[in-house]
Amino acid sequence: MTTLATSPVLDAHPRASIDEQDRRQASVDRSGYVPETYADGVIFAQDIDDVVLAMKLAHEHGAIIVPRGAGTGLAAGSSAQAGQIVLDLSRMDKILQIDPVEATAVVQPGVINAAVNHAAGEHGLFYAPDPASTAICSIGGNIATNAGGMWCAKYGVTRESVLSLLVVLPDGQLLRTGRRTIKGVAGYDMNALMIGSEGTLGIVVEALLRLRPKPKHTSTLVAYFPDENAAAKAASAVIAERLTPSVLELMCGKTLKAVDATLGTDHQSRGGALLLAQTDGYGAHLEMQALQEAIAPLAGHIEIARDEAQAQALIEARRQAIPSMELLGTASICDIGVPRHRLAEAFAGLQRIEDERGVSIFTIAHAADGNLHPIIVVPEGQSITSGAPKAALGDMFHLAQLLGGTLTGEHGIGLLKQDWLAEELGETSLALQRRLRAVFDPRGILNPGKAI
Amino acid sequence: MTTLATSPVLDAHPRASIDEQDRRQASVDRSGYVPETYADGVIFAQDIDDVVLAMKLAHEHGAIIVPRGAGTGLAAGSSAQAGQIVLDLSRMDKILQIDPVEATAVVQPGVINAAVNHAAGEHGLFYAPDPASTAICSIGGNIATNAGGMWCAKYGVTRESVLSLLVVLPDGQLLRTGRRTIKGVAGYDMNALMIGSEGTLGIVVEALLRLRPKPKHTSTLVAYFPDENAAAKAASAVIAERLTPSVLELMCGKTLKAVDATLGTDHQSRGGALLLAQTDGYGAHLEMQALQEAIAPLAGHIEIARDEAQAQALIEARRQAIPSMELLGTASICDIGVPRHRLAEAFAGLQRIEDERGVSIFTIAHAADGNLHPIIVVPEGQSITSGAPKAALGDMFHLAQLLGGTLTGEHGIGLLKQDWLAEELGETSLALQRRLRAVFDPRGILNPGKAI
Ligand SMILES: Cc1cc2nc3c(=O)[nH]c(=O)nc-3n(C[C@H](O)[C@H](O)[C@H](O)COP(=O)(O)OP(=O)(O)OC[C@H]3O[C@@H](n4cnc5c(N)ncnc54)[C@H](O)[C@@H]3O)c2cc1C
Ligand SMILES: Cc1cc2nc3c(=O)[nH]c(=O)nc-3n(C[C@H](O)[C@H](O)[C@H](O)COP(=O)(O)OP(=O)(O)OC[C@H]3O[C@@H](n4cnc5c(N)ncnc54)[C@H](O)[C@@H]3O)c2cc1C
Repeated sequence: MTTLATSPVLDAHPRASIDEQDRRQASVDRSGYVPETYADGVIFAQDIDDVVLAMKLAHEHGAIIVPRGAGTGLAAGSSAQAGQIVLDLSRMDKILQIDPVEATAVVQPGVINAAVNHAAGEHGLFYAPDPASTAICSIGGNIATNAGGMWCAKYGVTRESVLSLLVVLPDGQLLRTGRRTIKGVAGYDMNALMIGSEGTLGIVVEALLRLRPKPKHTSTLVAYFPDENAAAKAASAVIAERLTPSVLELMCGKTLKAVDATLGTDHQSRGGALLLAQTDGYGAHLEMQALQEAIAPLAGHIEIARDEAQAQALIEARRQAIPSMELLGTASICDIGVPRHRLAEAFAGLQRIEDERGVSIFTIAHAADGNLHPIIVVPEGQSITSGAPKAALGDMFHLAQLLGGTLTGEHGIGLLKQDWLAEELGETSLALQRRLRAVFDPRGILNPGKAI
Repeated sequence: MTTLATSPVLDAHPRASIDEQDRRQASVDRSGYVPETYADGVIFAQDIDDVVLAMKLAHEHGAIIVPRGAGTGLAAGSSAQAGQIVLDLSRMDKILQIDPVEATAVVQPGVINAAVNHAAGEHGLFYAPDPASTAICSIGGNIATNAGGMWCAKYGVTRESVLSLLVVLPDGQLLRTGRRTIKGVAGYDMNALMIGSEGTLGIVVEALLRLRPKPKHTSTLVAYFPDENAAAKAASAVIAERLTPSVLELMCGKTLKAVDATLGTDHQSRGGALLLAQTDGYGAHLEMQALQEAIAPLAGHIEIARDEAQAQALIEARRQAIPSMELLGTASICDIGVPRHRLAEAFAGLQRIEDERGVSIFTIAHAADGNLHPIIVVPEGQSITSGAPKAALGDMFHLAQLLGGTLTGEHGIGLLKQDWLAEELGETSLALQRRLRAVFDPRGILNPGKAI
């Protein structure tokens, strides 16, 4: 069923759709947030010119544009409602070039993260920031959220792997940020400013990515602990021992149960919490030995993966954590960060919140960075943006603040975390950031109400 | 000898000096640029309140402020002239805290880079971005220029090691950027925007630095090559072989001669160019073996350092490169970056420039990042900002552009590289950056004429 176009932008753009299903699908992401209305239409960009035209028209008519990658965001950053037009980048999904000698890739924004890693892998390279959603999220969305992933423990987040961007500004002008070289300080760091800006400063239409050499050797370990407290202390011990694992992921007991149910595995019988660690490089096995010694006093059962297949199975278990919870109800996915030595305190605080608010919290953590995802799961159909789940989310933020941490480590503010942003940034910073935003987008047409 | 204060800011500030020697010393950096006049006065800040007062007064009176760290900059970023007041941060030089568990340090801006590394070393940690000027440059200056150093090959530049900043804005307000956690995406990346902004957006008065575990094992190699071309190709081969040395420095034949003269060493007899490499981590020795194999076909003599003392002597040789050239005359230090596989082409281009312009060029390079310092040395007293040296500098920039590179890898634009900036950034970007600058500094009182 289609409705009539009400917008001159949708009327004029050759790639616009006002199909109801398109509008509905393009208005929600994976955050669990359900907007009350849907976007007026969707523009499916196929090339840079489509994006330029969309922004020129929007600029001219003061129409509101919501950029959208693969829609896997967890902060309602790409959610849209009536009066807004979604600019969908998912069809601009080509890998334009891989330079195996310089170890770089040029890609369009809609390309799926895993596809980049697959192509890089053919040259013995990899793209380090791979979120657990690697198979379903886009590079453009990764850039807009400064996404993290398992290998970020050692290789940094998206910001550390993006050399240069081609961006369409809100008025349709093209801007190039960054450079082709590893280092460079000519002008301000416009590249970093764009990364993590949640589609509020411009539309990423091309990216030059930095690839890394695939480690020739890796060693993977799984350790089971009596409870989350012990696992968190073990993770902090790894940092305190000055080790640099490439992966250090923690899963709570409830998560193990959920994953077991999905994959038919049996992690839960081996302990009440799990730590998954990987070391890499020429000394991978030696470093793993040191890691094992660091956590042994706290761990129950420890197992070193025999082979690549077992290592992959463990990594897959971690990747299936959120999807497994989603099978149990609606998930509200929190994303706090704390200093790395305060992980155990964070878990203790989460336990208190669970008890006090009467909600069910599943927690996974990128432990080497102190980035936790406490996930509130409510029965299907129940709201996550009001009542106890909302209050618990506020508690989690305050817990993070108390421990010297942050509201969001990698998912972004989007629509859902606006309430606590001013408290974290302070008024001076927020006011300044709003003025910066207005320099890029004086008419306020790009993703208003999101990010800052 | 003192002259009368002519500025209400200098009159009102308790830390102001109008002593002629103070003014003269505070008006030049290490770039070789000599301003025609000197600053009106110098404010020697001792604490944050001094900085806030200076900026409040300057803001009120529209007085121009030039921030200054240790004055070792190579782009005349902290050089000052009549009508300007230097705000000297060098007395704010305390290390306020080292957290050995979280691996962070809180420091004042005037602290010397090497002092941070010394203090971190006592806890088995190190601060990765250590410029060759480590013994004489300040952390505030490093942050303002996004300084690089030898270990940046593996650990990234200053931006990758600064978690959070406390900044005094041009109107005297305090701004905190970044956060205490490794990851975080609440709001725009104000931290990265401040880093490398060359004292044009605010004054850094405190920094939270990220320290790294000191590698338990390192291996150091020196290789001599017939000429720069062979050494450059060897460096590119290291990258193409997917190795990640922590140090990969190249020195040209002329530089070896200059260093030998300073240190009484004898590198020049062993080859016409040198590559210094270090690997670290649990597999340092194995990785060094692979590195050695990668460069062997191109190298003449190769030597693995027997012990830490020999490794340190090699590193010291590299650190003495620029000072050794400075003994031969006035040095104009260029700082281009090129894609890493084009190093040999860069050297060939530099040879052409040397021949055509009749100047003498010494070149050292942070080879793993494609960052070259071609250094034009002219007889003492001869100008580096006009004639053949200036023309050669322009040629070098165009060479970098031709190879897909940049005007400046780590030293910044300052005053000296303004001529070529628009060509690199393009008008859209430059105009946007100027509007961003005006958001921070609407009155244009902070380091005008520098950076962008
Ligand atoms: C099961 C699961 C696991 C996940 N695991 C992780 C994880 O480990 N780490 C992590 O960081 N995230 C994770 N996420 C969250 C999500 O995948 C990331 O935030 C991802 O980066 C979003 O990409 P996307 O293409 O889906 O973006 P979308 O959801 O479409 O959009 C996200 C934001 O980016 C903007 N945007 C999208 N494309 C562009 C563009 N081209 N130009 C400008 N702005 C744009 C949108 O406006 C929006 O603000 C997970 C999500 C799920 C469902
Ligand atoms: C022998 C030698 C070797 C060198 N090697 C390297 C190298 O390997 N890598 C490298 O990157 N550089 C190198 N440099 C250049 C120089 O040391 C760096 O640029 C350094 O970061 C400058 O620090 P400084 O404290 O001396 O800053 P200054 O020269 O005092 O100032 C530099 C810039 O920073 C601004 N600034 C200073 N302090 C602050 C503050 N607190 N807040 C805001 N703005 C401020 C100034 O306004 C100016 O624009 C070398 C220099 C020499 C002389």
